[in-house]
Amino acid sequence: MTNDSEDKTTNKVEDWWSTQIIDMKPGEIRYRGYAIEELIGNVGFAEMVWLMIRGELPTKGQAELLEVALMSAVDHGPQAPGIAIARMAATCGVGLNNAMASGINALGDVHGGAGEQALDFYLRIRSEMSDKDDLEAAVERALDEFFSSGAKYVPGFGHRFHPVDPRAPRLLEMVDRAANSGHVSGEFAAIGRAIEAALERLKGRRIPMNIDGATAVIYAELEFPAPLARGLFCLSRSVGILAHAWEQTQQGGRNKGPVPRDMFWTYTGHAPRKLPD
Amino acid sequence: MTNDSEDKTTNKVEDWWSTQIIDMKPGEIRYRGYAIEELIGNVGFAEMVWLMIRGELPTKGQAELLEVALMSAVDHGPQAPGIAIARMAATCGVGLNNAMASGINALGDVHGGAGEQALDFYLRIRSEMSDKDDLEAAVERALDEFFSSGAKYVPGFGHRFHPVDPRAPRLLEMVDRAANSGHVSGEFAAIGRAIEAALERLKGRRIPMNIDGATAVIYAELEFPAPLARGLFCLSRSVGILAHAWEQTQQGGRNKGPVPRDMFWTYTGHAPRKLPD
Amino acid sequence: MTNDSEDKTTNKVEDWWSTQIIDMKPGEIRYRGYAIEELIGNVGFAEMVWLMIRGELPTKGQAELLEVALMSAVDHGPQAPGIAIARMAATCGVGLNNAMASGINALGDVHGGAGEQALDFYLRIRSEMSDKDDLEAAVERALDEFFSSGAKYVPGFGHRFHPVDPRAPRLLEMVDRAANSGHVSGEFAAIGRAIEAALERLKGRRIPMNIDGATAVIYAELEFPAPLARGLFCLSRSVGILAHAWEQTQQGGRNKGPVPRDMFWTYTGHAPRKLPD
Amino acid sequence: MTNDSEDKTTNKVEDWWSTQIIDMKPGEIRYRGYAIEELIGNVGFAEMVWLMIRGELPTKGQAELLEVALMSAVDHGPQAPGIAIARMAATCGVGLNNAMASGINALGDVHGGAGEQALDFYLRIRSEMSDKDDLEAAVERALDEFFSSGAKYVPGFGHRFHPVDPRAPRLLEMVDRAANSGHVSGEFAAIGRAIEAALERLKGRRIPMNIDGATAVIYAELEFPAPLARGLFCLSRSVGILAHAWEQTQQGGRNKGPVPRDMFWTYTGHAPRKLPD
Repeated sequence: MTNDSEDKTTNKVEDWWSTQIIDMKPGEIRYRGYAIEELIGNVGFAEMVWLMIRGELPTKGQAELLEVALMSAVDHGPQAPGIAIARMAATCGVGLNNAMASGINALGDVHGGAGEQALDFYLRIRSEMSDKDDLEAAVERALDEFFSSGAKYVPGFGHRFHPVDPRAPRLLEMVDRAANSGHVSGEFAAIGRAIEAALERLKGRRIPMNIDGATAVIYAELEFPAPLARGLFCLSRSVGILAHAWEQTQQGGRNKGPVPRDMFWTYTGHAPRKLPD
Repeated sequence: MTNDSEDKTTNKVEDWWSTQIIDMKPGEIRYRGYAIEELIGNVGFAEMVWLMIRGELPTKGQAELLEVALMSAVDHGPQAPGIAIARMAATCGVGLNNAMASGINALGDVHGGAGEQALDFYLRIRSEMSDKDDLEAAVERALDEFFSSGAKYVPGFGHRFHPVDPRAPRLLEMVDRAANSGHVSGEFAAIGRAIEAALERLKGRRIPMNIDGATAVIYAELEFPAPLARGLFCLSRSVGILAHAWEQTQQGGRNKGPVPRDMFWTYTGHAPRKLPD
Repeated sequence: MTNDSEDKTTNKVEDWWSTQIIDMKPGEIRYRGYAIEELIGNVGFAEMVWLMIRGELPTKGQAELLEVALMSAVDHGPQAPGIAIARMAATCGVGLNNAMASGINALGDVHGGAGEQALDFYLRIRSEMSDKDDLEAAVERALDEFFSSGAKYVPGFGHRFHPVDPRAPRLLEMVDRAANSGHVSGEFAAIGRAIEAALERLKGRRIPMNIDGATAVIYAELEFPAPLARGLFCLSRSVGILAHAWEQTQQGGRNKGPVPRDMFWTYTGHAPRKLPD
Repeated sequence: MTNDSEDKTTNKVEDWWSTQIIDMKPGEIRYRGYAIEELIGNVGFAEMVWLMIRGELPTKGQAELLEVALMSAVDHGPQAPGIAIARMAATCGVGLNNAMASGINALGDVHGGAGEQALDFYLRIRSEMSDKDDLEAAVERALDEFFSSGAKYVPGFGHRFHPVDPRAPRLLEMVDRAANSGHVSGEFAAIGRAIEAALERLKGRRIPMNIDGATAVIYAELEFPAPLARGLFCLSRSVGILAHAWEQTQQGGRNKGPVPRDMFWTYTGHAPRKLPD
């Protein structure tokens, strides 16, 4: 019913929105080739995340490790700006999706980007290593370069609040298990640990791996490109953002500000003055 | 160079994005029919806002009154969630546009919607009035209906912080001037004042018009539909949101939370417990 | 080291951010009382979602059904505005978190709210039923009321694109299994099916349950309040939003608009005109 | 009524939200020291923008030039992602503020950042110039450096759609007027023109200044730091974003996607396949 030219224009428009992720016909939805009704009941959430992003189903070991990363970074409390923002937005008369979006929007280079930067750092170290014996040397070189650039905090290490981030050792343990079972290589767990050791030598005190560094190890072991460390962190943190936004909705409040209403802010600006004539 | 069918598909796609606001050809941009290079230098910001939204240029009096509304609601300080959210987002390593968007996203039904609701209330009262003498009666009826519904706060009136909102009387004064000069009718200023008087009689104390109620009077006088009271409030508040986000950027800070870092939050949840086996 | 008054002010500020979700001490993070290092490796993603939102761990059956709901609504292709928005934003030079947030922000009353509205509808029907025999009657009454109000489309039923939404029957099957195993009551599956049957009688053709109606059955069976149907839908759709934003990043493009660049839009506004003098 | 320690904690919390922009007491609001009721009716929108961001009132000439920049970049049509995103979001059942925020959120490094980058480029050239005679040399050096780095498009110059951006010459004309009246120095207009001339020599064809380059000249002349070029562009573009979101609301539509509903997308992914056993 369509002639050639109409096909060309339609094709051009449809090509503009070309994707490898999903195909649809009336009554049919396929993700990466798999029919949704087959996936339902046979494939879990972490596997769906992997399939949608990577294009193939993960192995059981890969899915388990991804699930561990996703469930481990869900929340760090109402002092984290992403959480506080979502809680405040939830009292302003917007939908739960808007409160969530407001929180996720804050997971930027400084708030959600550390995992991405840590992964980048691991990859850089690995590309510098010719064989495993060079690990310590490659780490020292990379740290040297890093600190000479003026940067102060190695992404993925140290924590303002936790002397030891309780999530990191346990996550590394999960990676060790997966490596022992042959699901992942374990090379990035080694790199992460080597960085931790080198930092202690350099600084004279322990600067332990934190949640960003640990999940970055996992994402690196699972061969996710660095920016996806941030995307997946967003997926994870969305759980806490939703839970807190919902809790705030239940607690009530209208136009919740950052501090109790009878508190004010410090004004350090110009003294009262009159407009010039 | 195109045949009929391609024209049809192209037309269908272009119709999908049909607009009356802007026309463009290479080298040419026209807003509502006016060439941009003619508008530049001859038409101010408030006039552009009016032209883009309403489709025609405003009169001088209308433009002045709109400008007054736009410059009067720019900020209410860092305890307002929209402002606090923008300031916190600005420390999370996102662009200034993202920090602004995060703040504007919070101007919902409760935070930015009061002007829209006040305008709706004014319009309802006006539609109930047959002639001016009925103003007091229409107001009393509307307030009666309002409070019977269980609502507590008439949108646009009263203020948590200000016994008298310093912006409202001055804004009404500007409306009076515009009405005296014949630029607007003044009927909504009358409605607003009548509500204020009736509220005082009802409650036994003064519940003065606030910024939302006053700008709503202006937007009603200028015949903007109620939802645009919120849209224009967003335009206005964006100025404060930008200023605060920028100031925070200059002050520094990383991942700024709502309270100083050595302060915590009150946990009222379940006591420590072990996972079931 | 602190005296009483400082405790009072500190307490007031910390109470302002009171939560039952997470407790933290240096080196320690507990979610709803459970230490994170215990949860890691023992509790999956869906269980974490449940724990964070509901406050207790779910049963195995509940977790499985929640996981099914979460993995089933991940994507509906680049014509869905949330997906298109995320893809376009991803080409504008913002972080992956910002592209995700932009997409999630669009999951409003019309785009992501259908599940919430369907759940509300199911709850209303259930509250009208005295015993199971009244199901058909309660459904007919509710539909009657619904259509008399002027509304046209029962939320959760029918689909613009799919004559039968391929996800719905499979999801109901999963609910049936869970009901048969005693994990859920099955009452909302019954309500959903009754609505479908009644709609067919009323309209003379099949208007099958769609993804929103089916996931709403699941969320109702799992006793989530209606607004959380939207929140959980956002969590689910975030997966597709992330996958599409990432794919677009890989495809490249700068400032991607909705249609190919050589296509324009239809201008239906004022003809070219000169500014008045 | 408070003792010393409470003052200390309260002070600490209030200092956390320290600002020079706004001071408030019950019944009193001062922006940068000026009482709002004095500003209303005496200070326009552009002057408020300046005051809020810069801390002092602008001169008349500065205000006029800022207003020109703000009104000139309001819209570039529904093919611009920020505009398309806002229009689509407006059909998804979110508030006008959310539709606006979604659009503004897309004004990133690539969509709204060109002005910021152009300003940076101008500043770099100026810092290299010892005296005016060096302008051509400094420009050539800077362009040389720029293209050697691999970059292709000088920010602020050239346009995909317009052989000559109709806004730029007119904006430069406004700068010339302001410079002739002594309101600004005119040095950045000179730099911008020198870049345009050098580009023509280098490339053998005209690559004219575009809206980003022209408004960047204005913002540079007005001594705004580069990131504010983006912030102010967001303020400007918000006008078009609001106008388009509102128009879409009036046109109707539900869950508006990027192309007409009967069009699809091109699927280039895996062929249909069955789940492995």
